Amino acid sequence: MSQQEYQIVQSPAGFAPRGPSVLYDPALPILHFPGGVAAVTRRNQRLRRAQILATIRRLLVENGFEAVTVRRIAEASGHAVQTIYNLVGPRDEAIVQAISEYTRYVGRTASPRADDSHAVIEIIDRWLQSVEASPEFCRQVSQIFFSRSRAIFYDFRDRELKGMHKLLQQQQRSGAIRPEINVRDLAEQLVLLASGLCVEWSDRPFPLEQLRRRLYSGYSHLLASALTPNSQIREVLHRHEANV
Amino acid sequence: MSQQEYQIVQSPAGFAPRGPSVLYDPALPILHFPGGVAAVTRRNQRLRRAQILATIRRLLVENGFEAVTVRRIAEASGHAVQTIYNLVGPRDEAIVQAISEYTRYVGRTASPRADDSHAVIEIIDRWLQSVEASPEFCRQVSQIFFSRSRAIFYDFRDRELKGMHKLLQQQQRSGAIRPEINVRDLAEQLVLLASGLCVEWSDRPFPLEQLRRRLYSGYSHLLASALTPNSQIREVLHRHEANV
Repeated sequence: MSQQEYQIVQSPAGFAPRGPSVLYDPALPILHFPGGVAAVTRRNQRLRRAQILATIRRLLVENGFEAVTVRRIAEASGHAVQTIYNLVGPRDEAIVQAISEYTRYVGRTASPRADDSHAVIEIIDRWLQSVEASPEFCRQVSQIFFSRSRAIFYDFRDRELKGMHKLLQQQQRSGAIRPEINVRDLAEQLVLLASGLCVEWSDRPFPLEQLRRRLYSGYSHLLASALTPNSQIREVLHRHEANV
Repeated sequence: MSQQEYQIVQSPAGFAPRGPSVLYDPALPILHFPGGVAAVTRRNQRLRRAQILATIRRLLVENGFEAVTVRRIAEASGHAVQTIYNLVGPRDEAIVQAISEYTRYVGRTASPRADDSHAVIEIIDRWLQSVEASPEFCRQVSQIFFSRSRAIFYDFRDRELKGMHKLLQQQQRSGAIRPEINVRDLAEQLVLLASGLCVEWSDRPFPLEQLRRRLYSGYSHLLASALTPNSQIREVLHRHEANV
């Protein structure tokens, strides 16, 4: 298999390289820890799971969320319906996993270390790059919020929230965020703002540059008082907010 | 007419009294500037308009937004369909006006002067009191966001945004907010956070106390770096965030 066919996330010691060379394509399977020592069976299972989740993302982009059914996933991925249930669970759960896997992948390409004080900015940046690379993916995910199946969107957002909370905890431990800040609340506000802006962008389209500016401005205002005075994020945020 | 039958907003010189004695009831007509010198015709028109808007809010609370039609408004208010069109416009526009009038009323009971540095806090506080007094009104308004007619929600939110922007501009002029802060962006973030929390509360119910705490926390984080060091809002926000 080549790197064109897969998006590869390596073990914590060797994240995907930084820089604009990283391509974001939700339709590609994401291979976790290819250098691991897992047994062949487990490795095959992981490959099939990655293919199924990529198929779900491709169907989502091509036909919208309503068209994603277990039968369609089976047809498009070439795996049996039972295999799909075994590896990714029922439909709604499978969609949550497919979306979460991709945004986790995008986040992981952002920064080699979660306690790096640039991590929050890098993550926004990478995430915006991925939206530019496939606006339709972000649009379709956001539009789930308006459907009767919006539990999928909430599940996804709750996972994002957990990730952001963990990241901010590490930032707090490393001294970039003041000790008295409630990082659980702050994580919720950052995620609520980002998802709120995306949902609005998906529903009342405006240029991506505006999404970028509004996101930076919101993150800047939310983080400004939480960051310690010498935190490097502070100036990066201000620069982004002013320039874009 | 008695005060039981109307909620009265007085001219800028004499806002409704502060304190828990103010009752919030979306089903009551709101009478603007009852002490004005408008001609009798104009005054009657205002009364009819206030009755129609109150009827819309009552229908919204009692039967939900889908049940609000011009025919139902006519039946319930005792006014002709044509009168309704003349005074409040077509259905969607009429609903926007009914909702906006009420939240503007609630905001106006908050503070006698918009450049008072407590105004932002007082407004959240009054608005939360109004949600406590009629949770169903807030729930029904928020649920419009998930309907095909969510342009109503957007219109309403855009009006809230304008009001918040104006308020923050006055706060900035009076020196409570730093001169370098982009108050347009800040207003958007405050409104997006508040409406996002309400929409979530309406869809995945949690206790009102939690809504209050999360709202204070978000406003506190967003405003903390925008406020000038000696602004009184700062300590009020921290107190609320810690106590509730």
